[in-house]
Amino acid sequence: MLIVMDRSATPADVGRVVDAAERMGLKAHPIPGEQRTAVGITGNRGTVEPTAFENLPGVLEVIKVSHPYKLVSREFHPDDTVVSIGGVPVGGKRLAIIAGPCAVESLEQTVTIAREVKARGAHLLRGGAYKPRTSPYSFQGLGEEGLKILAAAREETGLPVVTEALDTSSIDVVAKYADCLQIGARNMQNFELLKAAGRIGKPVLLKRGMSATLEEFLLAAEYVLAEGNPNVVLCERGVRTFSDFTRNTLDLSVIPAVERLSHLPILVDPSHGTGRRHKVAPMSFASIAAGADGVAIEVHHQPELALSDGPQALTPALFSDLMARLQPIAAAVGRTL
Amino acid sequence: MLIVMDRSATPADVGRVVDAAERMGLKAHPIPGEQRTAVGITGNRGTVEPTAFENLPGVLEVIKVSHPYKLVSREFHPDDTVVSIGGVPVGGKRLAIIAGPCAVESLEQTVTIAREVKARGAHLLRGGAYKPRTSPYSFQGLGEEGLKILAAAREETGLPVVTEALDTSSIDVVAKYADCLQIGARNMQNFELLKAAGRIGKPVLLKRGMSATLEEFLLAAEYVLAEGNPNVVLCERGVRTFSDFTRNTLDLSVIPAVERLSHLPILVDPSHGTGRRHKVAPMSFASIAAGADGVAIEVHHQPELALSDGPQALTPALFSDLMARLQPIAAAVGRTL
Amino acid sequence: MLIVMDRSATPADVGRVVDAAERMGLKAHPIPGEQRTAVGITGNRGTVEPTAFENLPGVLEVIKVSHPYKLVSREFHPDDTVVSIGGVPVGGKRLAIIAGPCAVESLEQTVTIAREVKARGAHLLRGGAYKPRTSPYSFQGLGEEGLKILAAAREETGLPVVTEALDTSSIDVVAKYADCLQIGARNMQNFELLKAAGRIGKPVLLKRGMSATLEEFLLAAEYVLAEGNPNVVLCERGVRTFSDFTRNTLDLSVIPAVERLSHLPILVDPSHGTGRRHKVAPMSFASIAAGADGVAIEVHHQPELALSDGPQALTPALFSDLMARLQPIAAAVGRTL
Amino acid sequence: MLIVMDRSATPADVGRVVDAAERMGLKAHPIPGEQRTAVGITGNRGTVEPTAFENLPGVLEVIKVSHPYKLVSREFHPDDTVVSIGGVPVGGKRLAIIAGPCAVESLEQTVTIAREVKARGAHLLRGGAYKPRTSPYSFQGLGEEGLKILAAAREETGLPVVTEALDTSSIDVVAKYADCLQIGARNMQNFELLKAAGRIGKPVLLKRGMSATLEEFLLAAEYVLAEGNPNVVLCERGVRTFSDFTRNTLDLSVIPAVERLSHLPILVDPSHGTGRRHKVAPMSFASIAAGADGVAIEVHHQPELALSDGPQALTPALFSDLMARLQPIAAAVGRTL
Repeated sequence: MLIVMDRSATPADVGRVVDAAERMGLKAHPIPGEQRTAVGITGNRGTVEPTAFENLPGVLEVIKVSHPYKLVSREFHPDDTVVSIGGVPVGGKRLAIIAGPCAVESLEQTVTIAREVKARGAHLLRGGAYKPRTSPYSFQGLGEEGLKILAAAREETGLPVVTEALDTSSIDVVAKYADCLQIGARNMQNFELLKAAGRIGKPVLLKRGMSATLEEFLLAAEYVLAEGNPNVVLCERGVRTFSDFTRNTLDLSVIPAVERLSHLPILVDPSHGTGRRHKVAPMSFASIAAGADGVAIEVHHQPELALSDGPQALTPALFSDLMARLQPIAAAVGRTL
Repeated sequence: MLIVMDRSATPADVGRVVDAAERMGLKAHPIPGEQRTAVGITGNRGTVEPTAFENLPGVLEVIKVSHPYKLVSREFHPDDTVVSIGGVPVGGKRLAIIAGPCAVESLEQTVTIAREVKARGAHLLRGGAYKPRTSPYSFQGLGEEGLKILAAAREETGLPVVTEALDTSSIDVVAKYADCLQIGARNMQNFELLKAAGRIGKPVLLKRGMSATLEEFLLAAEYVLAEGNPNVVLCERGVRTFSDFTRNTLDLSVIPAVERLSHLPILVDPSHGTGRRHKVAPMSFASIAAGADGVAIEVHHQPELALSDGPQALTPALFSDLMARLQPIAAAVGRTL
Repeated sequence: MLIVMDRSATPADVGRVVDAAERMGLKAHPIPGEQRTAVGITGNRGTVEPTAFENLPGVLEVIKVSHPYKLVSREFHPDDTVVSIGGVPVGGKRLAIIAGPCAVESLEQTVTIAREVKARGAHLLRGGAYKPRTSPYSFQGLGEEGLKILAAAREETGLPVVTEALDTSSIDVVAKYADCLQIGARNMQNFELLKAAGRIGKPVLLKRGMSATLEEFLLAAEYVLAEGNPNVVLCERGVRTFSDFTRNTLDLSVIPAVERLSHLPILVDPSHGTGRRHKVAPMSFASIAAGADGVAIEVHHQPELALSDGPQALTPALFSDLMARLQPIAAAVGRTL
Repeated sequence: MLIVMDRSATPADVGRVVDAAERMGLKAHPIPGEQRTAVGITGNRGTVEPTAFENLPGVLEVIKVSHPYKLVSREFHPDDTVVSIGGVPVGGKRLAIIAGPCAVESLEQTVTIAREVKARGAHLLRGGAYKPRTSPYSFQGLGEEGLKILAAAREETGLPVVTEALDTSSIDVVAKYADCLQIGARNMQNFELLKAAGRIGKPVLLKRGMSATLEEFLLAAEYVLAEGNPNVVLCERGVRTFSDFTRNTLDLSVIPAVERLSHLPILVDPSHGTGRRHKVAPMSFASIAAGADGVAIEVHHQPELALSDGPQALTPALFSDLMARLQPIAAAVGRTL
């Protein structure tokens, strides 16, 4: 932490800052400059609020220096983590392709789509049984019935299942059926859910919140790791900005940023990240070119009848085309499909 | 819903849109213009996704017209709602002043602050027993012990208690002690929590999410009302923008916007909305001048020792000063304290 | 500037940072911590780029400490600046009320409106002769003809004139007629225009750019002051965010922030800041309650016929009502009208 | 334009909307729905403000339908435009690689870098002679001297020159030396500059403003085309969001969006778009994979001595590596280098 003093701060003001730091068990290092003094604070293990000094007289600004995350940090764990989801590695040389419908609508729909995406090269099946919907009047998912359908589709195709847990009250039933628990963007800071997912220990696909900074995103993952579960896969799915031509603004520069700061794998969801079918393929290509460890793609055999997010779903034919065109891009960045 | 056709769309394209609408039980009204045709869609009760037509040939754009919320809407309920929290009306001529510490830290701390704010004119006591914290290593609140302390402070001062429920697993215990359940910004789209709060029936203070549009905010309230609980108080607490000189950007223009679209009362939390003590008073004055039904202010008798958010807490003396200066502003807009 | 080293940085890495600083004529102060070392840099007069050290080995992060603005800073000039526009003080105890049409459309329109706003208590007349328009097909203003009309309206009413200069090629002709040059939001970082306005020496009303940080806003003012012109009035007019219910998001918390960091007066433009007539009055009240030195309000006697921004213009009757209701709020914060 | 009436609107209210439209020479098409009436407006050639009806009684909302741009639109000009810059085509099968220093600092520096980037496959030379700088105390560029240096570097290497014009007063001198005029992000809505660039007729590289919507970006290009200059190349360079780990948030989804709406080529500037050297290569790959027509890369042979933006500049060796790794990605999307 660095405390910047006002130009007009007196030595007594600086002294008060030093005293306050020492009372908190920290060490203070005054740095006199030409125009002002700054005070470096060391010994902070992340428990002192960055603003604790802010209202002392003569203090102009307090600047946080150390990052509050530890377990997710590459500084503490230099090697890449590879998370195994039902035997499928996420984070290694081979890209992870997750595909499936937005929502589980019926056994026939889910099994049909699972077969289609399996045949075209997907490694993992996605599909929501519990759906977070902006409006209480929208389709809310089939619940446990949907989980059973996903399990049946896994039985049929061998694809491990990634599906969302919405709440601590249903996370156990989701964990009973799923190979990987998805925590959605709206729940990225539902800390009780993160802790529960950490305790369960199954792999977690953690989506970035709509307005989450990178630090908040990594700290959300830290909640899971702090419970003893290291199997977290991060997922960029677009952030909220002023820009109005897509549903969200896909922030692909988070990929090299995460790679630098964390050892966890990161995927991209270009379906939710753009909300528009014609942007899914180009943004998938861009994600892999930028270094993502895979993509999650919504596929529906009858998008015009989908109960949610039909307009962003690819048909199996479009998914097939995407996979074919993705192959040389993967190769170009030294990855396989 | 309005479907805008491309300039090059053929009559057959328009016909397909009309057919698709009729298959969904809707009525289509083609509007031929000089440069292009548009098709108005009526009969939609909010269940058709705005984008359902988007991938038909010849369609340029689909524009949503009707708002998906009903129960929170002023169109359906023209008169202002006044919510009673433990006998204190929120939404009428008298402003509602909520004050108290960010977090409940001890019986002595909470009772001391409760007495101070009561003596200076607060109507409701706030304080968190369950705290949502960005970092797993920050103080997480006293839990049920904190709720008991809040109840003791109410006993002592007569101030009804507003406190946060973080999760469906703890909402019942919170409801046992609280007069009003707060749903925090990070949980604004925790739909299971909203439904649970709706079922419990106690007043709900719903904070706007950090990147929530007005429609999403009102739909979150709609979740509570749809469960049969009309006692929702909205609360603006700042949104996330590029702006870096405050913790959040307080969006006061939401006040007249809510007043126009909804019958629910709206408060402002200038403490979290700015994160800086010196901005709390000016933004409180601005909130009331803009038409807010009250403010929620963090007060701590020893802010430098607070376990969370100390730098935004007012001392009792500063709170007293704020109340004195707020009085003529309230009078100027026809409200009382 | 503070340079934070990686946990794994070697003493040689730290040495290279110290050497680099010294080569630039700066002084380096290493601060060894438990987990990492940081290096404070002093002697920087704002000419070293904050990132100059970022790519040295072992450097984790570089944090800028000192603000690059000087002349606009309250640290360098503790007392409030009062700018006189044609004899009307802006920044003192009396609030400055600027009113008038968005665009000058005709002599009759402008003189009519000028008389109306003068009669209702406005101190300064606004009106655009050169209009920045998003579309090349929108009305672009009357140019010098419009300036002559403004001068005639001043003659008629005694109200000094505030009007926009769009470009270095027309700023001289604008300065010939105007009492105060407005620099619009889109030109806040048109540095050639800022320098030209600085050289001319007339008062400048500088609007905040749509995505300008506070530092960028103050540095834009610094450009004017650095040319020897201290007569700058800042103006908040809304920033661009994800929020979609107003044209812009009025960021009123910038008022106490500017007051703390700068001695310059600050006004608010709630007409452009909201884009909606029904929000102009509440946001005007909020602005003054938050401490603004005045407001700029668009008024049109026939808003439905206005050539630009009619929907945000108040009628003279609504302006009159606003002024009446503003009076007690001004009094409540110790200001006069 | 679509006018949505309130549920409680009377037939007289609807009649007033129809009358108002007709007075403006437009045609009104009422669409009675179950819950409310909407009125479609046709005949609008982009000159009626979207909000012109908003304050009539009974009007809930006014929705803009047609896009105000014409000449830049793919609807009006279905085939891709290829812009020739000094003989180098931008927009066709071959990608355009622009490279060079942020600022022209000296003849030796610029010629050295120009030779390096030419040898490694760049097609166009970039470099700023007039620099827009946030602070008045930062290096402002060499001016015409810098332009002469760029011309000398072109002489030496054969690379056509892209350089920024800051202002109408210097655009003629820039045009004398440059093969392509760059309009920077801060000037995207400097409409006088856009018109001047349109009149000069040389190719224009138009950078997206920091908070420009896609419509505003295309309308800025429309200003140039409306003056008779069709040679506009668009350039995404990052937008401003809450996200704090890069200088800007590179919005790559604008690439497929532009491709759909406009015939103009689009490049990406990953150097300014991220501000960090280690993100330049991954974001370049992502840009090309997403369909961009090229990239603009800052290269400096001694980045640690650069007078501006050193930390985002690649060394010639890193640029060489980027070009080598870009080649297979270009091939994967059917492009050449």
